[in-house]
Amino acid sequence: MRKSEAFTAAHGLRAPSNYSEEPPRHPSLVVNSKEPFNAEPLRSALISSYVTPVDLFYKRNHGPIPVVDDVESYRLSITGLVKIQKDLSMTDIWNLPKYTVTATLQCAGNRRTAMSKIRKVRGVGWDVGAIGNAVWGGAKLADALELVGIPKLSSATPSGGMHVEFVSVDKCKEENGGPYKASIPLIHATNPEADVLLAYEMNGKLLNRDHGYPLRVVVPGVIGARSVKWLDSINVIAEECQGFFMQKDYKMFPPSVNWDNINWSTRRPQMDFPVQCAICSLDDTNVLKDGKVMVKGYAVAGGGRGIERVDISVDGGKAWVEASRYQKTGIPYVADGVRSDKWAWVFFEAEVEVTHSTEIVAKAVDVAANVQPENVNTIWNLRGILNTSWHRVHVRVGRSNM
Amino acid sequence: MRKSEAFTAAHGLRAPSNYSEEPPRHPSLVVNSKEPFNAEPLRSALISSYVTPVDLFYKRNHGPIPVVDDVESYRLSITGLVKIQKDLSMTDIWNLPKYTVTATLQCAGNRRTAMSKIRKVRGVGWDVGAIGNAVWGGAKLADALELVGIPKLSSATPSGGMHVEFVSVDKCKEENGGPYKASIPLIHATNPEADVLLAYEMNGKLLNRDHGYPLRVVVPGVIGARSVKWLDSINVIAEECQGFFMQKDYKMFPPSVNWDNINWSTRRPQMDFPVQCAICSLDDTNVLKDGKVMVKGYAVAGGGRGIERVDISVDGGKAWVEASRYQKTGIPYVADGVRSDKWAWVFFEAEVEVTHSTEIVAKAVDVAANVQPENVNTIWNLRGILNTSWHRVHVRVGRSNM
Repeated sequence: MRKSEAFTAAHGLRAPSNYSEEPPRHPSLVVNSKEPFNAEPLRSALISSYVTPVDLFYKRNHGPIPVVDDVESYRLSITGLVKIQKDLSMTDIWNLPKYTVTATLQCAGNRRTAMSKIRKVRGVGWDVGAIGNAVWGGAKLADALELVGIPKLSSATPSGGMHVEFVSVDKCKEENGGPYKASIPLIHATNPEADVLLAYEMNGKLLNRDHGYPLRVVVPGVIGARSVKWLDSINVIAEECQGFFMQKDYKMFPPSVNWDNINWSTRRPQMDFPVQCAICSLDDTNVLKDGKVMVKGYAVAGGGRGIERVDISVDGGKAWVEASRYQKTGIPYVADGVRSDKWAWVFFEAEVEVTHSTEIVAKAVDVAANVQPENVNTIWNLRGILNTSWHRVHVRVGRSNM
Repeated sequence: MRKSEAFTAAHGLRAPSNYSEEPPRHPSLVVNSKEPFNAEPLRSALISSYVTPVDLFYKRNHGPIPVVDDVESYRLSITGLVKIQKDLSMTDIWNLPKYTVTATLQCAGNRRTAMSKIRKVRGVGWDVGAIGNAVWGGAKLADALELVGIPKLSSATPSGGMHVEFVSVDKCKEENGGPYKASIPLIHATNPEADVLLAYEMNGKLLNRDHGYPLRVVVPGVIGARSVKWLDSINVIAEECQGFFMQKDYKMFPPSVNWDNINWSTRRPQMDFPVQCAICSLDDTNVLKDGKVMVKGYAVAGGGRGIERVDISVDGGKAWVEASRYQKTGIPYVADGVRSDKWAWVFFEAEVEVTHSTEIVAKAVDVAANVQPENVNTIWNLRGILNTSWHRVHVRVGRSNM
């Protein structure tokens, strides 16, 4: 039931068929794929700010960026297994209570390049920068769903709706030119504590085109693939979304599955991401003087689970020191504290002594005591998603008195 | 503000000072500590039933078992930072809507004995049986809190209450003879989806004394230490409970912390437990014939996260086969399925070929793609909690034709 381009354009959103109308991008981004545009900031830029500047926030696309010719004619349809079907204008959305939620989005493919070194995987290569933290402003999806007669904390509608599908307008090769789409369970969508947003602002400004203007979904604590941009319609459906990115991608397989024996139906679409961290103050190419080195980076866990600890090793994982963790200036970070941003990453830092060329390692522990896997080979998967293995950086050290 | 024994007895619950009034226990339990009574079933018994029989459910106590002389005089006080303070009789509790929730409780010390082999830890020794799965019947805590004026999904009361403390009546050495107590955040307590129960039934029958008669808390997805038995009062408080078992126990420390340098205030009280599994069809003492071996056990994750996969290796962790997973007869297990018991363990089984003496290994993956750590030494901690490392069983194989 994909809408025709004409119909979609009537909703105020237009999906170009080629890349002639792409927005400008920051020149410092590392471009992993030009068309569609996929790019990430350098490690050092990534941790220059707790709230990632919009320009440096990773760009993850599956087609040309949609265009809004006239935002006043934009309408979001809420349809499917609901009592009342509604078309909402931006004014309708703005009139809902506004929330700002600081949430980290992470592409499931973050750190894919490192996984590919073990054994080749398919997908866009990413270093550690397919992640960013923004202050999203918008309406709660739970409030919008009340407008079509679905109360808070509903797990099913009277007509059998149990999932909420988000449909974009972009043209994706994987969908044979159709739009990107994904769904989350209705109980997640209608839980006000889950902070799922229909976001129109990013870091206090209107969303820009790369990040979903005029309206996108932000599903905190869940892989970025479910936070659909350029939202055209929301469908309340009985089964989870049958789109490519739910059924034939973004599922976690064991290392034994390859492209010859894969059976996509045996796995669930990935939602929450596991505990993750990465060192961002160092690259594998760094040559350091011996002596004190500051090791900095980010740590984050899905599902709103805070970061209980980050450990750093300078001997490849034998001895560890604990890093300090922080989010906002002047507010001590407490993993489950009310003043902490529960959906956001934490930065970590530790000063260590490096005397010779070595492997510096970081690993995080979340509040549920989940840990990162020691070796990437145990979690290798053919699509290269969710590389959350201990992050290892090889540094060469020359003696400072040489 | 511990109540005197006289006052407590007036609430219908009496806490003996010695072990002369202990209830009878099943003779097959492995007793890890006699006074207080701590015991677990044998591995094979543990997986004989998806719903653990009450007699075989692990017993975890910190003092003599309380006695109810007259259940009609029993009162649960709900007090603290609330509008209305109330004393509820069992009839009041029974009059609240009744829910049955299948939930697995696991002591944080499960598998401690194995962790102790690496380096000595303090605490009661447990094999893999400090865990059990029961059908709990009772009222939702969220409904009970409404009786004192706290709405659903509250994170704070007008007078500043942010935590809900559960106080027992037993006499614990660690509390200098005072009662066991623990707390959970108010937002957890008032979230009806969290299924926190004031339970009066276990597997369809009245709770027995060992498991908290007449009333206990069941906090699904959280370490057993927060599911307080023999409930005497519920206090809505500003800060988390300051009791021994919240502040000086059941916190997760890194391996570098020892009894000389420990600073308890640096860690949060553990709530959710991480993904776990254990092989229960085999013991380290088993001598097998070579050939096919059925490997069975349980897997579970905290926070309601389902089990996405269980992997079995017969070569110590090099090659893996995937085990089948199941909960209830005739219902295929789906990790996030609506017909699955989200708070309950899953059983797994895989038939493998064993040709020589080896290490059989099991590891599980939860829906958030969290994995168990490969080596126990990376998660060793001085109290020996949350040993969720890959479960390894050493089997000796004699040739069947010898």
